[in-house]
Amino acid sequence: METQTLIRLLDLIGIGVFALSGALMAVRLRQTLVTAAFFALVTGVGGGSVRDLLIGAPVFWVQDGAIAAVCIAIALTVWVTPERWWQGQLLEWADAVGLAAYAVFGTAKALAWGVPPVPALLMGVITGCVGGTIRDILAGVPSIIVRPEVYVTAAALASGLFLLLIWLGAGTPVAAVVGALAGFALRGAAIH
Amino acid sequence: METQTLIRLLDLIGIGVFALSGALMAVRLRQTLVTAAFFALVTGVGGGSVRDLLIGAPVFWVQDGAIAAVCIAIALTVWVTPERWWQGQLLEWADAVGLAAYAVFGTAKALAWGVPPVPALLMGVITGCVGGTIRDILAGVPSIIVRPEVYVTAAALASGLFLLLIWLGAGTPVAAVVGALAGFALRGAAIH
Amino acid sequence: METQTLIRLLDLIGIGVFALSGALMAVRLRQTLVTAAFFALVTGVGGGSVRDLLIGAPVFWVQDGAIAAVCIAIALTVWVTPERWWQGQLLEWADAVGLAAYAVFGTAKALAWGVPPVPALLMGVITGCVGGTIRDILAGVPSIIVRPEVYVTAAALASGLFLLLIWLGAGTPVAAVVGALAGFALRGAAIH
Repeated sequence: METQTLIRLLDLIGIGVFALSGALMAVRLRQTLVTAAFFALVTGVGGGSVRDLLIGAPVFWVQDGAIAAVCIAIALTVWVTPERWWQGQLLEWADAVGLAAYAVFGTAKALAWGVPPVPALLMGVITGCVGGTIRDILAGVPSIIVRPEVYVTAAALASGLFLLLIWLGAGTPVAAVVGALAGFALRGAAIH
Repeated sequence: METQTLIRLLDLIGIGVFALSGALMAVRLRQTLVTAAFFALVTGVGGGSVRDLLIGAPVFWVQDGAIAAVCIAIALTVWVTPERWWQGQLLEWADAVGLAAYAVFGTAKALAWGVPPVPALLMGVITGCVGGTIRDILAGVPSIIVRPEVYVTAAALASGLFLLLIWLGAGTPVAAVVGALAGFALRGAAIH
Repeated sequence: METQTLIRLLDLIGIGVFALSGALMAVRLRQTLVTAAFFALVTGVGGGSVRDLLIGAPVFWVQDGAIAAVCIAIALTVWVTPERWWQGQLLEWADAVGLAAYAVFGTAKALAWGVPPVPALLMGVITGCVGGTIRDILAGVPSIIVRPEVYVTAAALASGLFLLLIWLGAGTPVAAVVGALAGFALRGAAIH
């Protein structure tokens, strides 16, 4: 797979699963379909929007109508399907996948825009954590960052390992996959 | 009335009534005049600031001292007048007017900056909802978005109807007025 | 001392003490070291980031790796030292220093970017208050803005006095020091 394709895939995975976690939160709060779509969008693109603003890039989803449409479609899917399909810890697992994928993608995009390594790492962490944090603050539940679980650390592991492997000479695809898997594994262990 | 004037008027209405709702919230929380002015400003310009950042426009009130002065004057007016003038559901109604006006204006400005229809609709919704959400989060009350009321949907109706009428060939003034009135009516029905 | 150096110093003081207050908050919430570093960063650079986005300046810490490293070092220091070193009202006092320094610096930077006086004052207030507000919202405690204390007013005093003295013809260093001291004194009186 080409590097560009892989990085793009990580981005879409981050958006999609965060959108899913946002829609699930809204449905559990007995919100309307439109509010669920709003939660899906804000959770899905929130982290990437903050990242793009901070690094001075055009905000990715504003000029690309497809991304917003995907978030709305995910909310609609959650809305029309039986609620038992989405029970259990799916929200937590979707959030974990989004966290790991977005942390690596955020760091990779920051590097591509000329940000030095330490801020690039933080850009991965911040943007990986912002989507879920906005979702929790809007929903009025304790922010996932301060729950007694490994969360910020998992994002930092994904971004840090990605940067370390790049620095050691690994190709971007290897570094991205290993970083994201490590971050997901650490977060998953905390859920489990 | 010229299109440009109407759009500008919608913007000022959105800013003014959101500023009013912010000042009222601060006064109810027994805050000082300065804090009330701060709430008026943040609520009044919060949605528009996020919109401008996302679409890449210069943030409208930073270079235009008059807007900030108007927000401060509104806070001062609420502060020096008897509290019974502002009782009842005025805060909710002011918020409803701001929501409808800002949703249409946000979509219109996004279109003018070349944003495609789906993100433009969302730009209207997001920026219509952000001012009141920031006000509620700062005040520590449940965010208006998740209260059991029609809120996001009313903003989506205003923005969506505006877009639909434009697409059907209506002039901007007609589309703007019809969209804002429909959004306000839906939100008003939920208050009532 | 040169004006440029003094302004730079105010900036670093604001970042450093806000980072300290963020790290202290995380440690009191029994968070991990990585989460404490995240709180230090977000609290330290949050206000300045919002300011830079609003005035259209490049976000200061994204291209400058040293600032993020300093925030992380502060979190590490709080983490490895005995907790009794950091007891009592240190968090409140650190926050007060950051508020006063950041309010003046925010206004000075806004003026330097051509922002008119009224929005420049508000830029100082908003950015002085944003770091602590984000910290409190993430931590799930009532936002410092609405606690029954002088907070926004102290920031407004620091920024307003700075602007007034500049307008009266005082040099920037005098205006900055007097403004920051006045804001700090007012906030300090409320803590005490």
